[in-house]
Amino acid sequence: MKHVIANLCIRCGAEHAPKPDRYTCSRCGGLLEVTYDYPAIRKNISRSILENRQDPSMWRYREFLPIAQDSETSGLRIGGSPLYPVPRLAAQLGLASLYIKDDGINPTASLKDRASAMAVVKAAEAGANTIACSSTGNAASSLAGNCAARGFNTYIFVPERAPKGKVAQLLMFGAHVISVKGTYEDTFRLSAEAIDRWGWYNRNAAINPYLMEGKKTVSLEIAEQLNWQIPDYVAVSVGDGCTIAGVWKGFKDLYETGLIHKLPHLISVQAQGCCPINKAFASGSSTLVPMPEDTIADSIAVGVPRNFHKALQAIRESDGIAVNVTDGEILSAMQLLGKTCGVFGEPAGVTGTAGIVKALEHGQIPATASVVSIVTGNGLKDIATAISAAGAPLSIEPDMAMLLKAFKAQGWHP
Amino acid sequence: MKHVIANLCIRCGAEHAPKPDRYTCSRCGGLLEVTYDYPAIRKNISRSILENRQDPSMWRYREFLPIAQDSETSGLRIGGSPLYPVPRLAAQLGLASLYIKDDGINPTASLKDRASAMAVVKAAEAGANTIACSSTGNAASSLAGNCAARGFNTYIFVPERAPKGKVAQLLMFGAHVISVKGTYEDTFRLSAEAIDRWGWYNRNAAINPYLMEGKKTVSLEIAEQLNWQIPDYVAVSVGDGCTIAGVWKGFKDLYETGLIHKLPHLISVQAQGCCPINKAFASGSSTLVPMPEDTIADSIAVGVPRNFHKALQAIRESDGIAVNVTDGEILSAMQLLGKTCGVFGEPAGVTGTAGIVKALEHGQIPATASVVSIVTGNGLKDIATAISAAGAPLSIEPDMAMLLKAFKAQGWHP
Repeated sequence: MKHVIANLCIRCGAEHAPKPDRYTCSRCGGLLEVTYDYPAIRKNISRSILENRQDPSMWRYREFLPIAQDSETSGLRIGGSPLYPVPRLAAQLGLASLYIKDDGINPTASLKDRASAMAVVKAAEAGANTIACSSTGNAASSLAGNCAARGFNTYIFVPERAPKGKVAQLLMFGAHVISVKGTYEDTFRLSAEAIDRWGWYNRNAAINPYLMEGKKTVSLEIAEQLNWQIPDYVAVSVGDGCTIAGVWKGFKDLYETGLIHKLPHLISVQAQGCCPINKAFASGSSTLVPMPEDTIADSIAVGVPRNFHKALQAIRESDGIAVNVTDGEILSAMQLLGKTCGVFGEPAGVTGTAGIVKALEHGQIPATASVVSIVTGNGLKDIATAISAAGAPLSIEPDMAMLLKAFKAQGWHP
Repeated sequence: MKHVIANLCIRCGAEHAPKPDRYTCSRCGGLLEVTYDYPAIRKNISRSILENRQDPSMWRYREFLPIAQDSETSGLRIGGSPLYPVPRLAAQLGLASLYIKDDGINPTASLKDRASAMAVVKAAEAGANTIACSSTGNAASSLAGNCAARGFNTYIFVPERAPKGKVAQLLMFGAHVISVKGTYEDTFRLSAEAIDRWGWYNRNAAINPYLMEGKKTVSLEIAEQLNWQIPDYVAVSVGDGCTIAGVWKGFKDLYETGLIHKLPHLISVQAQGCCPINKAFASGSSTLVPMPEDTIADSIAVGVPRNFHKALQAIRESDGIAVNVTDGEILSAMQLLGKTCGVFGEPAGVTGTAGIVKALEHGQIPATASVVSIVTGNGLKDIATAISAAGAPLSIEPDMAMLLKAFKAQGWHP
């Protein structure tokens, strides 16, 4: 890994050798960020090398990733998600150009697969074959799926309130699932103690610096799919801040190696009921003020985001904007994407799109802009919300006369 | 479409011009099959042409498809699903070589997307922009999603017992959903009457001959992904028979054009509680004897399969085998695939894999064989079944002493 210089502490600036299982700064406990030797990367990669590469997965960008060139991956096809131009939706919104990046088609149906796939590689490099985390959501299912594919063990700690469907998915992947009778905080604490005790590899986006490096591949793909023409804005839903920080890192890495010559502005979209990062951004503060977690978008309901500083820095560096959306606006975006694009996202997955709609309404972005919206998870992950948002079908007796009457009443004119 | 000769009636042999909206034989009402001018196709396609093609979707095989070369598709990225070598599972089963084709990663999470994407193209060729079907399952959701992406209208008739989650998905895609107070038969009849009345394009895998042509692309992909080394067996779950007939058509088309020089044996896998096609095959009969629909694998619970003859012919022509599996065996296969491969399939989706396990146990296929199993749909489509199969997590108080005790009791040794 000659192309990795060090893991830099974002708090005290200390440089650490990039060990696969060194998660935080040994001096101050701060979060680390992987720093690269960009001139070295530049020598080994170019647009045309990438264009001729067959591998459609996130691993086509190995030169940009903090892994050994011969590291074995989980085997699942992670990444390579489609980027859809959606001119009809753009026209409807009065926007010059809009693209939807559908990351819900990943093997376990969310962008988190990119981070978990990276965790599996780094665990193997550390000589581990057991990975643990505490989560009830996409991080857990993606970890379980990627570990199963690689033949690794996984221990996942969930609070007892975790939805049964998600727990079932974990069990299906063969994870050791520990349901903790307590709060999420209790669960997290027990998992940390267990990870320490047994030396499991720690898949915790909050602290593991490599996961963000996996997530950044979504930006590398967007750039390549747009033939290196970078959009003016990239909208992404924000919870604990790891994803938006990863998105930014991806574009920055491309910029630093000279593969692109422009950086997008980030649109950080949070739920109005839980928006501590956007609040800090709006007020110009760098102090985290925790918030309650009051939103249907469970994947981004994070009142105490652990990647607060990285996220804030990303929005600021990109000269970005922050938009908060209501649950109603999230549900509307869900229907809008489904109806006009054929893309079914989970609530947190479509929050970025909701933010674009709102930013346009409020004049925060110009109608002439080109915008990419990242859909981070599949709607099948949360059918209950879809049911509540979808309304009811037309209900009739099996009779043509009744059908005609019902169509008329409904205002349907086939 | 010079490469299409005719649509041939499989019952009376009459040849029909390949009109996009001619579904059945005008002479006898029989089902049609698209026949090709293979030498003409051969002139325009080769392995190396395909290998250099960028399009990863099913449309990379345009030369083999009954569409005009300039026809516009739905825009969703259908097909191009991963084919995973799974040596650990193969070893566990005592099988020389096993691959999993995960078609659950399609945009609406099932193989049916391949058929619906074809329906959208043929509807457009027929000058229609409204498509209808009656279904509660994957056919409906894939039609709704593909129509939404293309800006087409869709009318979908569902029986009132249709699961709310599936109806919600349809409504999310903007489909006109008509819930019929009656049986599936009542629903089908009303939809047929409405399709006649309003001249909607008919997406009914039972009769529309083009849908099978969309489905066959799964075989074209398998062949190309295996570098044209055809496996000894291909296992697929069978309901109304359209999918297995499509799978066979794909391999035959490749064989006829000289791109491959071997044909696989098909393994037709049905649920024991609903296996009319396999029963006929086993008894050497060509007469359909309807069966009750007694299985958890709802997508293949078809007591009166409309593609009975095409399916039967496919199994016979391939010198294939038929395997019936219990619901318990289906659930076991679901866990097996999840645990060893990181692939989460719906019950009907993993039925093919269950059949492979059983066929090996009964000596119906040799341990030296190479086998491909097609997983036809994502497990997130039916979380309820996953919950019933998954068992329970380990439930404990947030305390390390309790955790140690529970691990010991469970026999977990981290």
